[in-house]
Amino acid sequence: MTSYDPLAIPQMDDAASSFGFSPCEGGVCAAAGMKAAGISAGFRKNPERLDMALVAADKPCTVAATFTQNRFCAAPVQVSRKRAASGHARAVVLNSGNANAATGEPGIKCALDATSLVAQTLGCSADDVLVASTGVIGVQLPFEPYVGGVPAIVAALDHSAAAAHDAACAVMTTDTHPKEVSLEGPAPQSDGTSVTVHVGGFVKGSGMIQPNMATMLCVLSTDAPLTAKAAHSALLAAVKQSFNKVTVDSDTSTNDSCFLFATGEAGGEKIDEASPAYPAIAAAIKAATTNLARQIAADGEGSTKLVTVDVLGAASQDDADTVAFAIANSPLVKTAIYGHDANWGRVAAAAGKCGVEFDQSCVDIDFMGVPVLRGGLPVGMDEDDMLRRFEAPEINVAISLGQGDAHSRVWTCDLTHDYVKINGEYRT
Amino acid sequence: MTSYDPLAIPQMDDAASSFGFSPCEGGVCAAAGMKAAGISAGFRKNPERLDMALVAADKPCTVAATFTQNRFCAAPVQVSRKRAASGHARAVVLNSGNANAATGEPGIKCALDATSLVAQTLGCSADDVLVASTGVIGVQLPFEPYVGGVPAIVAALDHSAAAAHDAACAVMTTDTHPKEVSLEGPAPQSDGTSVTVHVGGFVKGSGMIQPNMATMLCVLSTDAPLTAKAAHSALLAAVKQSFNKVTVDSDTSTNDSCFLFATGEAGGEKIDEASPAYPAIAAAIKAATTNLARQIAADGEGSTKLVTVDVLGAASQDDADTVAFAIANSPLVKTAIYGHDANWGRVAAAAGKCGVEFDQSCVDIDFMGVPVLRGGLPVGMDEDDMLRRFEAPEINVAISLGQGDAHSRVWTCDLTHDYVKINGEYRT
Repeated sequence: MTSYDPLAIPQMDDAASSFGFSPCEGGVCAAAGMKAAGISAGFRKNPERLDMALVAADKPCTVAATFTQNRFCAAPVQVSRKRAASGHARAVVLNSGNANAATGEPGIKCALDATSLVAQTLGCSADDVLVASTGVIGVQLPFEPYVGGVPAIVAALDHSAAAAHDAACAVMTTDTHPKEVSLEGPAPQSDGTSVTVHVGGFVKGSGMIQPNMATMLCVLSTDAPLTAKAAHSALLAAVKQSFNKVTVDSDTSTNDSCFLFATGEAGGEKIDEASPAYPAIAAAIKAATTNLARQIAADGEGSTKLVTVDVLGAASQDDADTVAFAIANSPLVKTAIYGHDANWGRVAAAAGKCGVEFDQSCVDIDFMGVPVLRGGLPVGMDEDDMLRRFEAPEINVAISLGQGDAHSRVWTCDLTHDYVKINGEYRT
Repeated sequence: MTSYDPLAIPQMDDAASSFGFSPCEGGVCAAAGMKAAGISAGFRKNPERLDMALVAADKPCTVAATFTQNRFCAAPVQVSRKRAASGHARAVVLNSGNANAATGEPGIKCALDATSLVAQTLGCSADDVLVASTGVIGVQLPFEPYVGGVPAIVAALDHSAAAAHDAACAVMTTDTHPKEVSLEGPAPQSDGTSVTVHVGGFVKGSGMIQPNMATMLCVLSTDAPLTAKAAHSALLAAVKQSFNKVTVDSDTSTNDSCFLFATGEAGGEKIDEASPAYPAIAAAIKAATTNLARQIAADGEGSTKLVTVDVLGAASQDDADTVAFAIANSPLVKTAIYGHDANWGRVAAAAGKCGVEFDQSCVDIDFMGVPVLRGGLPVGMDEDDMLRRFEAPEINVAISLGQGDAHSRVWTCDLTHDYVKINGEYRT
């Protein structure tokens, strides 16, 4: 694979580190001016599980958001999509246990009433409160838990890392652990100085849709003073290269929502897309979403391996993405990885089936950097060495099409007995 | 689902019966002038398994063929695609045990040499001999088995149903049983009389690609005197509505090939696309391929159920097909069916994710004709009754989008522990 060098593949996180960003504590509360809380409000039957989260800025601030493209979209998505378009918000209230999806007009009313209650308790406009839900589809979301829960969760709001962690825990469904991230680094100013800013957040999601449990939900925050337009651009670019590159089972949910609050509390000059700080902040946001996206893939339902699929040498970006998803979604490739099998035949067949044009005699395939196909013909491999490499928690499959310079990286997981068990033995 | 009536969905087989076609004996030898044979030639290590098939017309006749669109296509596909384009052929030689795929120039030479040997033994031009292979990818196909096998198999050629059955058995890989079909019925003539014609064939395939075993292979024959153009049109139309509507795991093979020989031995006037007999013959060919396609889906790797997905009320044919495949390929839908779960949430989410526009409040979903969603909202169902219906060998999922009149029917199977076992525990 003349064009393949693992070190030459752009590492999403490298861009952020090259701007001087590094991990820090605090999750979604790492950004100055952000509070969070997670409580048990009664959406779930089990009173020991947290099921309501609130993330709130100290005052209304810039917000950007992206939502599922699924035509079946839940009530909270319909409400939040409209409100986030204003570019400002104060808070987002989230619940697990019930997705408020396929619930018609009563579902919309429940979502609106919930935001009104949060707004009233926080002391802001209902238009500045967003909402998200995850859990069972097709069951009306009860309003009752909000009645007692909203005053309690507003009282619990706190700037601490522990509060951020509670919020991250409260949105979990079949996730096996909470998924948080936080980074800090310099935002360069026009005068050559810099201001320290933070980017943090949490995500939930372990299948693209759960066993009838809808969703990936993500709340991000930064204290960098982004304009609404810059926040939107940076979020879209980050999501495109991270959450949109994760596939557990090729299914996308009715409730996927990703919110970014930008409090501006770090100070310094306003950051628009032309500002000197924009590339650094955008890279940090992308590093945060990439980190969370990899956590989702690694926690895929029933998964034993995080799988990174790299496509190189494609004629166009579209071609690279199409081939990467064809490989990452192939049940045959995913079961082969589960079986610790460097099965290049399945990778080649997945690449070949998706309508992208290439010459099979130009194709190279590597597993974990070890060549298994060159110029469309198999090359011998050391079976024992390959089996040892499959013991690693992360498996890399790379294919070079030899057609051009475009590349794509997609994350997935293996397909296991536990996936069938989780999804086949669950009953609605 | 106002627009849904299972009886109103065009049944492929109904068209053929309405033209007077009914099942008969004989498989690929049902058509007059067709011989077949299946022997053990040594492509497989197990000498008890048949591994070479030959299907031959008594003399060169009309042929049509369709092949995989996979960019990774095997040597026999490259050879046969070129030759079948002439519209005439005498025979096709097939083997199992080795796909002759990813074998480069030596693979092409082996395929060409095999056809030359068959041609010499049969006494025809090598240009009139087609070739197909199925089995392991990436291993050179040995020529040795042809040396002893071709004279033996030519000697074994016979017009009998038993010979057709041997050929069907010789191409099996992980198929659990051979898959054959044969029909007979009247070909209407311009003078108002009719001539009895036959359509028969066999297919192999149980995953779109097997565990590194490539392929769906199909050989069809008819004694109707089709022109090359009519044979091509009828075959393309039939394949589009049958084999192209089957998905076991969304993976398509490097070796898929479908051949139709038309001997003309039934007599009667030449049949072109404008002939009075054309609609009947085309319907019979479609009935044959639909029957074989359903056999493939029912024998999908690890499957316990044949699943029929009907999409109704779509705005266009493309929309209907896209939604049908999104549902049929959804691992969540397939595991739900394995779990006997009428999980409309997964069906709705699969329909919603694929980019087709519709209003969720117009969507109806049925399982086995029982309404579970109406106007985007769940309707109560009798759980015990539904569980009883899931005992059937064939499961029907129907969704109406309420956008128009287009419909699509796709066949698949459930996703089971055995699929993961077969594909995850197989080692290259």
